[in-house]
Amino acid sequence: MNIILFKKSAYINKSEIIIKDKKKYKHIIKVLKANIGDSIKIGLINDLLGIGIIKNIDKTEKTITLKVELNKKAPKKLNTTLILAMVRPKSLKKALHVAISMGIKEIIIIKTWKVDKSYWSSPLLLEESLNEISIEALEQAKDTIMPKIIIKKLFKPFIEDELSPLMNLKRGVIAHPIAQNSFFDINNNAEPFNIDYLAIGPEGGFIDYEINKFKNIGFEVFKLNERILRVEYAIPVILSRLI
Amino acid sequence: MNIILFKKSAYINKSEIIIKDKKKYKHIIKVLKANIGDSIKIGLINDLLGIGIIKNIDKTEKTITLKVELNKKAPKKLNTTLILAMVRPKSLKKALHVAISMGIKEIIIIKTWKVDKSYWSSPLLLEESLNEISIEALEQAKDTIMPKIIIKKLFKPFIEDELSPLMNLKRGVIAHPIAQNSFFDINNNAEPFNIDYLAIGPEGGFIDYEINKFKNIGFEVFKLNERILRVEYAIPVILSRLI
Repeated sequence: MNIILFKKSAYINKSEIIIKDKKKYKHIIKVLKANIGDSIKIGLINDLLGIGIIKNIDKTEKTITLKVELNKKAPKKLNTTLILAMVRPKSLKKALHVAISMGIKEIIIIKTWKVDKSYWSSPLLLEESLNEISIEALEQAKDTIMPKIIIKKLFKPFIEDELSPLMNLKRGVIAHPIAQNSFFDINNNAEPFNIDYLAIGPEGGFIDYEINKFKNIGFEVFKLNERILRVEYAIPVILSRLI
Repeated sequence: MNIILFKKSAYINKSEIIIKDKKKYKHIIKVLKANIGDSIKIGLINDLLGIGIIKNIDKTEKTITLKVELNKKAPKKLNTTLILAMVRPKSLKKALHVAISMGIKEIIIIKTWKVDKSYWSSPLLLEESLNEISIEALEQAKDTIMPKIIIKKLFKPFIEDELSPLMNLKRGVIAHPIAQNSFFDINNNAEPFNIDYLAIGPEGGFIDYEINKFKNIGFEVFKLNERILRVEYAIPVILSRLI
């Protein structure tokens, strides 16, 4: 937690908020070792960043009252929508974390052929869990703006009916281990490389049918290099090229 | 596991090996769903990559006999030594994984001021655990060459007596959140950016004393951008610039 995020509902008057979340309380007291009078970095969700001065610590109720001053814009987001194949929930959690903390503003989780059906019943996909993952990533990256996370369980209709009409003048790329061109080659010609849609496959990769569906609506296919990375590390490697 | 690594001791004759490791057995049978006659991707540790054809599966002993043919060199390593501050063991494990799977050939784990002393008693630092992490990362990245992992528990003597004499004509950089220059700016001038030594601090960052010790022996200081990333994601973001 490099900042403490709070919701509008935390306000108790015009300039003061109360933190009731146990995890944040513990972080402020145990990790930051903050005391009354100290100031900590805070942010209002979907709004500005700023400073909170500790006015009161209620050790019984485990709440902290802060006088807040918000004055700084959240860092810029990346202009890329991440299309992420559903992967094993543990990996998905990490992939979402890194994508959000690097500034991805929209993530679409899609169903692909090589997905264990049981993954879809993971509690991780509940709105509450996705919100929690998002807030944790924003608190890591000192960002306040919540990403949009969308789940699409029908591959073909998503590509053909929803994504296709959006592709006009947009650049879409797929990361695929057996592509001919590499992301690392692109970088060498020093042109800024904008990606509107970045699609990343499941652990076993997209199947040819899926690759072709993406290609049909204008996606280009790139690999990293010979080395295959876990999805949560492939994401920062590729996004690093867009910053 | 994108390849199965084995040691020389696995050979039962000139061209056949036996896999006794339970995790690898399970991977071959359950994930790859391989059967007698199928070929799987393999590699001899610190040697070549190749193919193994399944000759026998012993379901009682859970062993697999493979006829092996090794014919391909492991992918190139990066020419960077990673100097990594000891971090919480869970993060260290991830940081090592991504560094090794991206091709780092030498990692030096150092003691810094902002390190919880209890971390040093983690079993993760035992040679056996470090070997296991290394092999797992190599199997992910289809590499065979084991990295060197060194632990240095005395900061000042390491910097001044060991690292300093190696710095002649070498480039060392520190990733530090409050640096003036950013890794992302370097990239814009399209020059190849070689780093011989990359130092990454603990979660709270290096302290000024440590930064100055590095600077005294010629290290340059760079930040990422406003966003602060977990160490395991900062590593691929930076390494991505070196490939």
